[in-house]
Amino acid sequence: MRYAMLAGETGDWTIDAIRPVRGAPLGEAPRLQVVEAERADGLPAQWRLDGVVSNIRYATAHEAAALRARQEGLGRPEARRAVLIPIAKSAAWWALAQDERRAIFEETSHHTAIGMEYLPAVARRLYHGRDLGEPFDFLTWFEFAAGDTPAFDALVARLRASAEWTYVEREVEVRLSRP
Amino acid sequence: MRYAMLAGETGDWTIDAIRPVRGAPLGEAPRLQVVEAERADGLPAQWRLDGVVSNIRYATAHEAAALRARQEGLGRPEARRAVLIPIAKSAAWWALAQDERRAIFEETSHHTAIGMEYLPAVARRLYHGRDLGEPFDFLTWFEFAAGDTPAFDALVARLRASAEWTYVEREVEVRLSRP
Repeated sequence: MRYAMLAGETGDWTIDAIRPVRGAPLGEAPRLQVVEAERADGLPAQWRLDGVVSNIRYATAHEAAALRARQEGLGRPEARRAVLIPIAKSAAWWALAQDERRAIFEETSHHTAIGMEYLPAVARRLYHGRDLGEPFDFLTWFEFAAGDTPAFDALVARLRASAEWTYVEREVEVRLSRP
Repeated sequence: MRYAMLAGETGDWTIDAIRPVRGAPLGEAPRLQVVEAERADGLPAQWRLDGVVSNIRYATAHEAAALRARQEGLGRPEARRAVLIPIAKSAAWWALAQDERRAIFEETSHHTAIGMEYLPAVARRLYHGRDLGEPFDFLTWFEFAAGDTPAFDALVARLRASAEWTYVEREVEVRLSRP
């Protein structure tokens, strides 16, 4: 399923801050909404990012089962904070074979294992944009209670310090809240 | 890069036969062309299938190097035959974890290893459609000299006999030629 993230005048989420982490930033806007892409055409937006929820790319059956056992869905009533992190990786990353990317992603950078430590507090949903010709390869959506903001900050700092992140060419952090 | 396969009145390739292998067929048409998707909008077509050339999904670095060493590109002057095989796999396939799909694809079904045996005679290009919301998950384009048609027939028969193919829900075979 293809979704669109629309930044503009309307949306359930208030944009508290847009922080460029690496490369070109995104423009300021007051609010954000996530809608099915076919419903987004024609809606006004200051910017729009699309992505599809797709199949697992790196996790093993064992890892996927561990994630399913611990994770919770989006939309929990207590989850009043969200962060959208759009990322583009380099051509060098995409030219790697599957086993080389997997080794950097998990055996070296422990991407899944780190994320697991913050479950169920920090719920996560991944959207893929690269094959759509979008400017970002991934849109990752994190959702958590306000009190879990320090845990989220630690999670994202650990990932940014990993070997995998040396392949990240563009990254923006969009901090969101809802009342 | 996103491409469109357009079946209709025009195109370099003559459609010699369209054979439904499993599931719903595709309509008859005289000719076929492959164009960049953004150039295809508005062009008349009896049917259109889109796909993107994307990164490697299963091959290891060792396998990818072996493929690069043996394979040749599309468009060789002697390659007057082509076959387009659109395929959709089942929800059960896409629900598998990465290691489970890899094991069926290669360790059990020897997909890459079988294809390698027919290089460089049978050139191949893979287009991904699933994340685009297309009816087919993959469009595979094979190109070879007329004299290598029996080799192609053996290649595709071996793949269809594999464990991987038990996950194929829809498949069509479009036989093409150019003078």
